[in-house]
Amino acid sequence: VEHYAVIVAGGSGNRMGSEIPKQFLKLAGKPVLMHTLQAFYEAVEGISLILVLPLNHIPFWEELCNNFKFEIPHLCVPGGETRGHSVKNGLSKIMAEQALVAIHDGVRPLADKTMISGCFSLAFEKGSAVPCIPLSDSLRKKDNHGSHPVDRNEIYAVQTPQCFEIEILRTAYARADFMNYTDDAQLAEAAGFQIHLAEGSRRNLKITTPEDLILAEALIKAGKLSVE
Amino acid sequence: VEHYAVIVAGGSGNRMGSEIPKQFLKLAGKPVLMHTLQAFYEAVEGISLILVLPLNHIPFWEELCNNFKFEIPHLCVPGGETRGHSVKNGLSKIMAEQALVAIHDGVRPLADKTMISGCFSLAFEKGSAVPCIPLSDSLRKKDNHGSHPVDRNEIYAVQTPQCFEIEILRTAYARADFMNYTDDAQLAEAAGFQIHLAEGSRRNLKITTPEDLILAEALIKAGKLSVE
Repeated sequence: VEHYAVIVAGGSGNRMGSEIPKQFLKLAGKPVLMHTLQAFYEAVEGISLILVLPLNHIPFWEELCNNFKFEIPHLCVPGGETRGHSVKNGLSKIMAEQALVAIHDGVRPLADKTMISGCFSLAFEKGSAVPCIPLSDSLRKKDNHGSHPVDRNEIYAVQTPQCFEIEILRTAYARADFMNYTDDAQLAEAAGFQIHLAEGSRRNLKITTPEDLILAEALIKAGKLSVE
Repeated sequence: VEHYAVIVAGGSGNRMGSEIPKQFLKLAGKPVLMHTLQAFYEAVEGISLILVLPLNHIPFWEELCNNFKFEIPHLCVPGGETRGHSVKNGLSKIMAEQALVAIHDGVRPLADKTMISGCFSLAFEKGSAVPCIPLSDSLRKKDNHGSHPVDRNEIYAVQTPQCFEIEILRTAYARADFMNYTDDAQLAEAAGFQIHLAEGSRRNLKITTPEDLILAEALIKAGKLSVE
């Protein structure tokens, strides 16, 4: 069965305090997105990579690829109005009848190989795989009276890559309200499919603040020193 | 009004893959706990620091203080069977009738001054202050059928220092079931007091895994470089 990754990098970087969108910022010597693409390329032999970028970012990305001599093959696809439109544009490039597709945040450059291949395996077996990690902090929910504790028992934080059989994604993204979902698992569920949980990774940070970039850099350096 | 911090460091380090409990591990040149004590010492002028340690760790800690020439004054108190017993032992050393008390995890060495003084101010005004940060990931809860999404809207992760008027803590810790709570906010609530939320900090990591130590070290280094 063919393997695809749709890497979504639509963010315009408002939260970074930086003119450059976060997916293009340098992390351990090269742009965040290059780490992300490389992770999937190295995790799954023969995988096809589809990168969804805002149309006006594509020339900048192509220039980066030239400057950094980035040679991992990938298809660049223009994004849409919402994250959902962007994913749908990426999916529309997959012609195969049968395929496994990982949908992944471009700003999660530290997805590790074991996790990626584990998600594909589970999706092959069950149809879907959503990586999760247990929460480490106590939780509270704000309400009309102030706030109240929330039992964190059995609650997990959802990461990407979220892997699915292409048929599930085609059905889900055919829904009229697909653009209202920011989480593919919830969209697939709304379309009637069951979600299967896989094991996520603490290293699999989503880079949304300048601090996250510092953390990612430290994890990369430490990873190179240790025997992994 | 007098200010106190009860710093609880009862952990025996099972999760660190290390013989040394995590509160004693070196972070940017000195043990984690020394950073924690220093943070409170520098945040609030005249604060009294109470450090709760397992009885058999106290000689090791005193030796560390000698070796590192650590001179921030603090009272060392032996811990108890549970976290609740440890906090209660710490509180029992506070003789003042009126006081504001911060209860803090020893393994959160990066609590910043603004957050600490903000929590004390809110507790002075309202009786309690519990620092929280919004969650950045989608959530799912495991159930009998697999799992289902949890709306993360208005859900916050709880940190420490949790600050209270001493009278609230005395009433709460007089409850027969005090040892069943690992979160002081929930214990105070069970005793009938209202909890007020303060702004936590993304930097305020709880060090529970080797990766957390790497992250903390990176944040300290980055903090020194930037203009804070």
